[in-house]
Order: sequence, then structure tokens, then C-alpha cells
Amino acid sequence: MDASALQVIVPIAGIAAVAFAIYLARDVLSRDKGPQAMQDVADTIREGADAFIRRQYQTIGLLALVGAVIIGLVITVFETKDVADTGTFGLELGIRTGIAFLVGAACSMASGIIGMYISVRSNVRTAAAARRSLVEAVQVAMRGGAVSGFLVVALSLLGVWGIFAAYGGLAGGQSTHDAPFLIVGFGFGASFVALFAQLGGGIYTKAADVGSDLVGKVEAGIPEDDPRNAGVVADLVGDNVGDCAGRGADLFESTAAENIGAMILGVGAFTIAQAAGWPNPTAWIFFPLVVRSFGLLATIVSMFFIRGREDENPMNILNRGYWVTTILSVVGLAITTYVMMNTGGTAGANGIPVWVWFFGAGIVGLATSVAFVYITQYYTAGTFRPVREIAQASKTGPATNIISGTAVGFETTFVTAISIGIALIASHWLGEQAGLRTEDGRNVGGIFGTAVATMGMLMTTAYILAMDTFGPITDNAGGVAEFSRSEAGAREITDRLDAVGNTTKALTKGYAIASASLAAFLLFSAYIDKVNLIETNRHGPLLTSVNLANVSVFVAALIGAMLVYFFSSLAIRAVGKTAQSIIVEVRRQFREMPGIMDYTQRPDYARVVDITTRAALGEMVLPGFVAVGTPIAVGLLLGHEAIAGMLMVGTIAGVLLATVLNNGGGAWDNAKKYIESGHLLDDSGNVIGKKTEAHAAAVVGDTVGDPFKDTAGPSLHVLVKLLATITLVLAPLFIR
Amino acid sequence: MDASALQVIVPIAGIAAVAFAIYLARDVLSRDKGPQAMQDVADTIREGADAFIRRQYQTIGLLALVGAVIIGLVITVFETKDVADTGTFGLELGIRTGIAFLVGAACSMASGIIGMYISVRSNVRTAAAARRSLVEAVQVAMRGGAVSGFLVVALSLLGVWGIFAAYGGLAGGQSTHDAPFLIVGFGFGASFVALFAQLGGGIYTKAADVGSDLVGKVEAGIPEDDPRNAGVVADLVGDNVGDCAGRGADLFESTAAENIGAMILGVGAFTIAQAAGWPNPTAWIFFPLVVRSFGLLATIVSMFFIRGREDENPMNILNRGYWVTTILSVVGLAITTYVMMNTGGTAGANGIPVWVWFFGAGIVGLATSVAFVYITQYYTAGTFRPVREIAQASKTGPATNIISGTAVGFETTFVTAISIGIALIASHWLGEQAGLRTEDGRNVGGIFGTAVATMGMLMTTAYILAMDTFGPITDNAGGVAEFSRSEAGAREITDRLDAVGNTTKALTKGYAIASASLAAFLLFSAYIDKVNLIETNRHGPLLTSVNLANVSVFVAALIGAMLVYFFSSLAIRAVGKTAQSIIVEVRRQFREMPGIMDYTQRPDYARVVDITTRAALGEMVLPGFVAVGTPIAVGLLLGHEAIAGMLMVGTIAGVLLATVLNNGGGAWDNAKKYIESGHLLDDSGNVIGKKTEAHAAAVVGDTVGDPFKDTAGPSLHVLVKLLATITLVLAPLFIR
Repeated sequence: MDASALQVIVPIAGIAAVAFAIYLARDVLSRDKGPQAMQDVADTIREGADAFIRRQYQTIGLLALVGAVIIGLVITVFETKDVADTGTFGLELGIRTGIAFLVGAACSMASGIIGMYISVRSNVRTAAAARRSLVEAVQVAMRGGAVSGFLVVALSLLGVWGIFAAYGGLAGGQSTHDAPFLIVGFGFGASFVALFAQLGGGIYTKAADVGSDLVGKVEAGIPEDDPRNAGVVADLVGDNVGDCAGRGADLFESTAAENIGAMILGVGAFTIAQAAGWPNPTAWIFFPLVVRSFGLLATIVSMFFIRGREDENPMNILNRGYWVTTILSVVGLAITTYVMMNTGGTAGANGIPVWVWFFGAGIVGLATSVAFVYITQYYTAGTFRPVREIAQASKTGPATNIISGTAVGFETTFVTAISIGIALIASHWLGEQAGLRTEDGRNVGGIFGTAVATMGMLMTTAYILAMDTFGPITDNAGGVAEFSRSEAGAREITDRLDAVGNTTKALTKGYAIASASLAAFLLFSAYIDKVNLIETNRHGPLLTSVNLANVSVFVAALIGAMLVYFFSSLAIRAVGKTAQSIIVEVRRQFREMPGIMDYTQRPDYARVVDITTRAALGEMVLPGFVAVGTPIAVGLLLGHEAIAGMLMVGTIAGVLLATVLNNGGGAWDNAKKYIESGHLLDDSGNVIGKKTEAHAAAVVGDTVGDPFKDTAGPSLHVLVKLLATITLVLAPLFIR
Repeated sequence: MDASALQVIVPIAGIAAVAFAIYLARDVLSRDKGPQAMQDVADTIREGADAFIRRQYQTIGLLALVGAVIIGLVITVFETKDVADTGTFGLELGIRTGIAFLVGAACSMASGIIGMYISVRSNVRTAAAARRSLVEAVQVAMRGGAVSGFLVVALSLLGVWGIFAAYGGLAGGQSTHDAPFLIVGFGFGASFVALFAQLGGGIYTKAADVGSDLVGKVEAGIPEDDPRNAGVVADLVGDNVGDCAGRGADLFESTAAENIGAMILGVGAFTIAQAAGWPNPTAWIFFPLVVRSFGLLATIVSMFFIRGREDENPMNILNRGYWVTTILSVVGLAITTYVMMNTGGTAGANGIPVWVWFFGAGIVGLATSVAFVYITQYYTAGTFRPVREIAQASKTGPATNIISGTAVGFETTFVTAISIGIALIASHWLGEQAGLRTEDGRNVGGIFGTAVATMGMLMTTAYILAMDTFGPITDNAGGVAEFSRSEAGAREITDRLDAVGNTTKALTKGYAIASASLAAFLLFSAYIDKVNLIETNRHGPLLTSVNLANVSVFVAALIGAMLVYFFSSLAIRAVGKTAQSIIVEVRRQFREMPGIMDYTQRPDYARVVDITTRAALGEMVLPGFVAVGTPIAVGLLLGHEAIAGMLMVGTIAGVLLATVLNNGGGAWDNAKKYIESGHLLDDSGNVIGKKTEAHAAAVVGDTVGDPFKDTAGPSLHVLVKLLATITLVLAPLFIR
């Protein structure tokens, strides 16, 4: 098959995924909404989520507009002819970059909004289905989640492809060669939106969680999910805006930015292919788009495998779909590499064809994603040593629970770093064997190998994201069932799904971290390519090395590593402040509306949601600006080599701290659940369950873990990718 | 004055400091030991500390012996003629390195043992003095602490100088040029001992603290420092072995390793000076020794300024001495740079003499040490926002206390990183202006500027260490007064001193971190110099850059950053395990010795101390081997450029995590004290003091912070310096 024929798959797969998402959405929406009591609760949640999303995306939209104008101006002024990386520069480039930024931002927002639209409607339908059947409930929740998954990935694919086409990427030759550099603004726009979506959603969800717990359970002494506590609805809203919209934006930008980075590296391969006279040089640039398209198609097929027995562990049903996606992705990867990496007979090391080496690199990426799925399970599921250790430590009180959880969180960096290290070295080595050599003899195959691995990993994104959104939907379904005092059978099913949802949410974070680390190397190389293109045009010295022995690089690296702590500190503190405003409001309601306590008065849910929304959006601004401003300041002060050091070391530090926060938080959460399900025994073999001191200690750990794993950790994923896109877009500003 | 005349000051200052330490020790020992009850308690503590130190140093001594043999063998086998950095290689170098390692280890152990000998005898005398006068108590405690301070610094000075002299450093010419490379084993030996001393002591002290609290206060419901709890004596012993011996070993190795690293950089300056015909080329190599000698002399003088009024804040008395040391150090620095950096008229930038530029760099180092003293105070003292914020958060329970403390801990990285960044860039810039140019035109003045700044900072080490040891002495004095039911006046004074001691202990950690970060750059440059000397001899490619864009460097950097988390995880977990063995033993005593509770039976203090000792020493082995083994494994697998990346990024990560752990822990501790001293008010202005829920929450935070700030954090200081000395010594092993 001809490579250019294969390229047609990009719009086809993108449109097919959108169509399939519409089909799934219609299917979900047509389902039974359950009794009126359920619908009432769900309506309240939906209204709150809509209100938050509307206000949040208005704020973000405004910020993005300002951002686009500033970036456009900066590019216009600084990326003049003599420092431009392509033939487009000055005002034209400024406008193009600003537009790309806005399109990226708009696509990210659209996928967030539509995903939320379905997820807040899937929850009640999942709860209703749970009254009849576990498998049906799994299907409804997973299909609802898949709407998000497909839309996020399809919009990112179509968005990158569309802007690439609009900027001449399909014209071939030099025009295709230049286009990847013109669309980096798209990735920046996506990162920008993701940062604020994740921060705002993350602050909202955990502030509502912590605030309503403290004012209800601790102060007023009423149960955790009691309808008398107006903060509880905010908590249910929070599950949607944090886990669903936030993670969606996170992975939208992963896929977009990494895709663009890989295309920039593809330009290097294109030049080599052209010089060597290989059949289809532009295929190397199109490769990331095509391979992702196959991933989307594989995920569509897998949706038909989400079926099982009523008495089956729901996790098995989801795993089945994941393995179908993975195996079909391997097939798609083989086809793509075979067709698109046609070298007309030129072989790599040991006479093995070039495409086989890169196919191997892609497999490394897929394997890494599988590895992270299992690593995360080991560290956060109750069946293994880490969670049991924390549960045991809870016997001697909250202090030992926290110490033990911290030790577990720190420990998880070991296997994370080793896995990433192996993946990078293996994919780099495989790529080197393929032997793509530039005119001056440099082997750029290694870097391209890491790019292929990243793309391989991203093939399953839609499925992972569907599993992730499954989490808040089932969590909400449980809340809806509880609130509407549904039958015990339904609640038993939603509880089982909720436990599975906790695992899938944790998996997604592990996946996001692994992709961020693989991508760091790729985006970093893209940055160096871009700098050197500029330097070549202006006849400046090439950036051949980011030298840690250079004092400004070292200091920038130090600041990069510091930034991840400082940013997390701001995010965690924002949760505390926002929680305070919830506490104050719910206290006021208890005081001024005495009928709430004897159920004669309905609490003012909307007001709490509104107050939380405003507080969370206000609090997201400072960490957001610190995240955007620090790399710009460091780049301006210390120059283009130093900012590269900041990017790399900031990524290392961010990935590790996010691992600590996500896994530590997940382990604390499940240690509490471990005790609640009666697995913890005392020395005489009696169960230490709910309402014991050990349980109280475990609740402390769970509460501490909340802002770690749902606010700071996920925001760090976005931060590290933002570092990469900022440096890519603003490179001309930093060159000395 | 001639530079070689100034060199005589090294043995003079070293011997003077030892003599002065003996004078102080005799003075302290001649003082009143108080009533028999006090002496009994103090004897029990002393016996426990002696037992621990004896056993710990036997273990460490054995490990060091094995280490020396292995290193000697490795050097003999690998550092053959063609990869040697000097004319000494093979068996001769192996033996010399092994001996240097052992001498370094022995000096470190000796200073730890002697310091401990005095500190466990100063506590009771401080308690006795507190019955009469605050100023006298301050003097006794500070003099007791100063014995440690002077011995540690003097032994490190005399040790480095002695081994340097023994290996031909005083012979002049090529022999002096080579000697710094031959003595790196001394630094490695010191690091090796420091690692295990800090780990063992740190695990012991916090396990005793946490374990005795849990079994006494939480389980048995008796007060915190109750004599019926046999674990309490172990806790008092722990203050000595952790804070005193541990930090002493930490700073012993800082001063030794940084001194040697600066001498290696001095070799570069020597070559330049020789080529330029400057008056005294070897002075550049001797500079670090001489400047430290002036620091020691300044500290001796300052001891006579430790005086004040009875109603004065004891911190002011100590600060007065610190400022005297700092100001005299400035004078000493001016003399040293003026005399030793005589360029025979060659000036640096703007016609300003070379020595003036380096004098400026040294001032930057001294200023950094002052800055860290105040930064630490801001973040850990109850008078400022961070601690008050944590105390406020305690009102809503332990979870918010932990969240708030974590946010504060993370936040402290900001000002830490910025200060270090400014210090590095400023001292590097000043050094560059001096303009030391090699034959091929490279300006090595910048790196030498950072070395001078590090040396400037280290001038006050003896004083800082004296203040640090003041901490455990006064802490113990309080315990002795409490245990022996001394008069209220004495206890009031020891309480005030204890609070000051908490601050001084925190300051020392800040100081150790700052010196580790400045030194990282210097030791890293020394490593590169050594590698290039080897490469020059074997005609290999020079290491001109540690390129983060190189995949193996990136992966090594990732592993370096991971190592600090993983190591901390092991250290924290070791505390938990050791605490368990205390809990089991005290429980047994309560059960089998029923007379303990009504004071008719004396608890078996010695047995608890013995059990804790054995457990702590057993638990220190795993983290110790991980710390030593990981850099060796990475160096062997990924090569000499990658290990340099690991060293740098591991240092960045280690410094920041140590900052988080130390300052977070210190802030939690003082938030508890803030509440205990009645500063926390409720909404109506009533005091929320001891025995409230807020206080209980603050106690949880304090307990969590204990292993952070006293085990993991300080062990990280040692870890980052160990990374540097290992790479320096084993460089030939890693070269590809």
C-alpha cells in the first residue's frame, strides 16, 4: 500500500470516532433515568456542574484570548526574519500562532464541555441500570465515559490535522517540512486550557470533598454523604469537574503536544528520507497522525467487547476491552510502520528493515503503558503489601498512618523511574539500530525511536480515558443511589463499580505520568531542533548540548525542580482556602435554616455550588500564573540553553513528585476502604472496622491524600507538559 | 606577607582549636553536677549513649574497613597507568586511597565520639547551672557544644592537611599539583562514616521518640516524659546520638569533601599561576586550608562573647557570638585572599585586582550562610506566618494540620532555590571577572569563584556546629531537670533554652543544605577536572559537557532524583520498624513488671536502649547500601557522563527534598509549641491550649515531622555529598 493512501485514514478515523461518540451518547441518553427521586438528585448535580463549567470556561476562554493576543504580539515582535525557523515570520507568524493557540484552546474546551455534558447525564442512568443488572450498569458507565474518551482524542487528532492542513502541511515538499513548526501554538493553547481546567476542577473537587466532610461529619456529626449537608452536592459535582473534565483536558494536551513534537522530529527524518531518495519522505511527518488513527479505530472495536457475566469482577470486563485495544493497536502499529517507513530496501543494523526497529520501539511504548497499569494497581489496590502496610499503621493512630503513607508514596518512585528509564533507553536503542543518519553523520534514529514509543503509548488513550471517566460516573451513580434512598441491591452494585472506578482513576494518572515522561524527551528534542533551525538561519552557534556543568543551566534546573514543589504548595493551599468558604456557608445554613436538621427545610445546594465555583476559580489564577510565568522569566534571564535544562529537570522532578502524590493519595484512600471492608484484624483476629480509632486514623490519611492525588498531582502532569510547549513556542524569545 | 608564611597557620589553627576544645571540656567537666537525683538520670542517659556509640562505631568501623579494602582493590585493578590522573596508579594508588579512606573515616569517628563524650556530660551540668543562672546555663551548654564544633572542624582541617602533607602536598611543584587528587579517599571515608552515623543516629533518635510516645502517652495514658516509661530514656539518649553525633559527622564530611574539592580546583589555578609567573602558585591549592584556619580562629575569639543579661533572650546571646564569628571571618577572608591570590600586578576585569573579585565571592558565601539562618527562622519559628498557619489549620483536625504543613514544607523550596541560585550565579560571575584563563583560553575563574564562596560559607562551621550541639544538650538538660523533679525555676530556664535549641538545630540543617548545594557545583567541577586529567593521559576525548539531551544522562538524572525519594522512604520506614521493637518491649515491661505503674519497680531502661540500638543499627544497613550502591551501578551501566548528570540532578532533588522535610518537620514541631504556649485563640478570643483537639492535631503533625526532619532530611544531606565523593573516587571505573 502507498503511504499517502494510508494518510487518508486520519480524517476517516477522526470522523468515525466522533460519529461513534454520538452513537454512544444517543444510546446512553435514551436509557431509563430511574425513579423521580433519582432524577431530582441528578438534576441538582447536573445544574451545579453546568454552572461550574460555564463559569470556568468563560474565565479560561478569556484568559486564552488574552494569552493568544500576547503570544501573537510576542512572536510578531521577536520572531523576525533573522531568528525564524521557517519562511514564515513576523506578523504573519504571530497571527498564525495566535490562531493555532486559540484553535487548540477551543478544541480542548469543546471536548471538556461535551464530555461533561454526557457524564453528568450518565450517572443517573448508571444508577438506574444498577437496579437491574451489573453488566448493564458497567456498559452505561463505560459508554458514557467513552463519549469523553473518543471526543477528546478525536478532537485532538482532527485539530492537529486540521491546523496542519490549514498551514500547508498537505501541500508536500518544503511546505510540509515547515508546517509542524507553525502549529506548535496549538499545543500551547491546549496546555494552557488544560492547566486551568485541571487546576480549577482539582481545587473545586477536593475543596468540596474536604470542606463538606469537615463541616458535616466532624462539626455537625452527621454522616458523610448526608443530604442535609449542602456541601455534599458540591462534592458530587466536583467528581465530574475534577476527574472528568480535568483529566480530559490533561490527556487532550498530552496527545496534541506529543503528536506535534513527534511531527517536528519527523521533519528530521523527512530530510534524511528525501536525501536518500526513499519512496515517501512526507510519511515520516504524517506517521504520528496515522498511528494515532489506528489507535482510535482499535478502541472503537474494543467497545463491543465490554460485556461479561453478572457475577464477574467488573474490573475484568474493563480489562478485557483494554487488552483488545492493546492487541489491535499492535496490529495497527505494524501496518503503519511497514507502510510508512518504506526505505526502498535500505536496512538498519543486522540487515533488519528500518520499520521493524521502529515497530519494536512502538511496542516498547505500548508495553510501558501496560506496565504502568499494573504498577499503579500494585501500589494502590488493597490486595497488595503497600496498602495493607498503611492499614496496619493506622492501628497506632493518624501519625503512623501518615508516616507509612508517605513512605509508600516515596517508594513508588523507584519502579516508576526504572520503568521509564528502561523504556527510554530501549526505544532509543531500537531507534538507533534503524540508523537514520543526517548529512553530517549524526544518528537521529534514537530520538525518533522515543517518539515512536510515545506514539505507541498514546494509541490506547481513548480507552484509558473512557475508563477514567467511568470513575466519576460510577462514583456519582453511587451518590445518586444513596441520596435517593434507592434499593439495597442497586447500592451494592454501585459500590462495587465505585471501587473499580477508584482503580481506573488511579491507572489513568499513572498512564498520564508515563506519557509525560516519555514525551519530555521528545518535546525537548523538538525544542533543540527548533532552536537549531533558528540558529542555522541566523548563522549562530548550534545548540549541541544542554550542559549541566554550565552554571546557568544548573540554576535553571534547580528552579525547575523547585517550581514543581512551589506550584504544588500553591495548589494544595488553594484547596484549603476554598474549603474554608464552603465551611463558612454550610455553617451559616445550619444556623439560619434550623429546619435542615429535621429534614423540614431543603438546604440551599445551589448557593454552596456557586460559592465553591467562585472560590475555586479565584484560587486557580495564582498557581496558573506561576506555572506560566516562571519558565518565561527563567528563559528571559538565563537564556535558551538554561531553559532547556529547566524543562528536563523540571520534568524529572514533576513526574516523580506527581507519582508520590498520586500513588500516596491512592494508597491512603484504599487503606481506608480496606479497613471499611473489614480486612484489618487485631492481634486476636477480631475485625477492626468502621468507627474504630484505626478507621479514624485512616480517614485522616484519606483526607490528606485528597488534595495530593486529585489536585496537586494531576496539575503537575499538566505543568510539565506546559513547560515543554512554552519553551517550544517562545524559543525565539530565549535565544541569545 | 608571603603566602607560604601564611600556610603555617593551618597546623597552628588546628592545634589551637584542639587545645581550646580541651580547655572548654575541662571547664565544663569541672562544673557542679547538681544533686544526686540529677546525676542518676544523667548517668543512665550517658550509659545508654555510650553503649549506642560503642556498638554503632564498631559496626561502622567494620564496614569502613571492608569499604577501604574494596576501594583499594578496585582502584588497584582499574586505575592503571593509562587511566590514572597522576603519576601514582595501580597498587600504590590503591593502598594510598584505602589509607586515606580509613584516615577520613577514623577522624570522623573520633570527632563524633569525643563530641558525644562531652555532650552527655554537659547536659547534667547545664541542668545544675540552670538552678542558679540562665547565662551560666547558656555558657555551659554552649561550651559543651563548642567542644564538638571545634573538634569536628579541627580534625577535618588537620586530617586533610595531614594526609595532604603525607602524600607529598608540601613538597611543592608537581608533587603539590598531584596531591589533591590522591586524598579524595579521605573525603569518601568521611562521607561513608557520616552516612551511617547520620542514618543510625537518626533512626535511633526518632524511633525512640515515636515509639515511647505511642506506647506511653497513647496506649498507657501516662505523660510524655514520664519516668515509668522505659522508652523515655532511650528518647533522651537519642537526642545525643542523632543531633550531636549525626550532625557532627555530617558537617565533618562537608568541610572535608568541600575542602578537597576546592583544592582540586586550585590545581587548575595553580597551573595558570605557574604559567603566568605569579609569585606563589601553590598558594591557590592551599587557599581552602588557610581560609578555614582563619574561620576556626574567628570562632575561638567569638566564644568570649557568649555572655549577656539574665533577662535576655538566650537566642540573642548566641546570635552575638555568631555575628562576631562572621565579622572576624570577613577580616580573615580579606587577609587570605589578599596574601594568597597575589598575581604580581595582573588585574581582573575593570582593573580591579584578582583577589578583590574572589574576596567578593567569599563574601557571597558568608552572606548565603547568614541568609539561610534567617530563612530557616522565618519558616520554623512561631512568630511568623508559616507556623501560625499550621497552628490555625490544627483547629479543624489532624488532616488539615498535615495538609497545611505539607504546603509550608513545599513552599520553603522557593526561597531556598532562589537564594542558592543567586549565590551560585553571583559567585560564579565574580570569579569570572577575576579572569583566570587556561592556556586554551577557558575562563576557570567562575568555577573557582563558587569554590571560594563555599569556603567562605564554611568559615563559620565550628560556630554553627556548637550552636547545633547546644540543642541536644539543653534538650537533655530539660529532661534531666524533669526526671529528677528539680525546682520550677530550673525547669523554667531549661524550657527556655530548649526552645532556643530547637531553633539552632533547625538553623544547622539549613546551613548544611546551603553548603551542600554550593559544594555540589564545586565537587562536580572537581570530578570533571579529574575525568579530563585521566582522558588527557590516555588521549581520550575530553568531557566538555554533561549533556542532558543525551538519553543516558537523562535517565541517570531521573534515577538520581528518584534515589532521594527511595532512600528517604527506606529511612522513614526504618524508623517505624525500630519504633515497633520499642513498643513491644515497653508493653512487656508494663505487663511483666506491675510495680512500674505505682513507682515501686524501676523500669529496665538499659534493655530498651539496647534493643533500640540493635534495631536501629540493623535498619541503617539497607538504606546505606542503596545510597552507596546506586551511583556505582549507574556509573558502571551508563558511564562517566551519565553519572555526572546523576550527581547534579540528584543533588538538586536531594537539597529540595531535604528542605521540604527539615522545614516542614520544624514548622510542625513549633506549631505544636505555639499552641502549647497559648498563642492560638478561637473566634471569641479564648486560648486553645494543651489537651484540646487542636493540640492533639498538632501533636500528630509533630510526630509525622519527627522522622522527616531528624532522620530522612539530614540523611539526605549526607547522601548528596556521598554521591559527589563516590564519583570522584571511582571516576576511573566509569570512564568508557
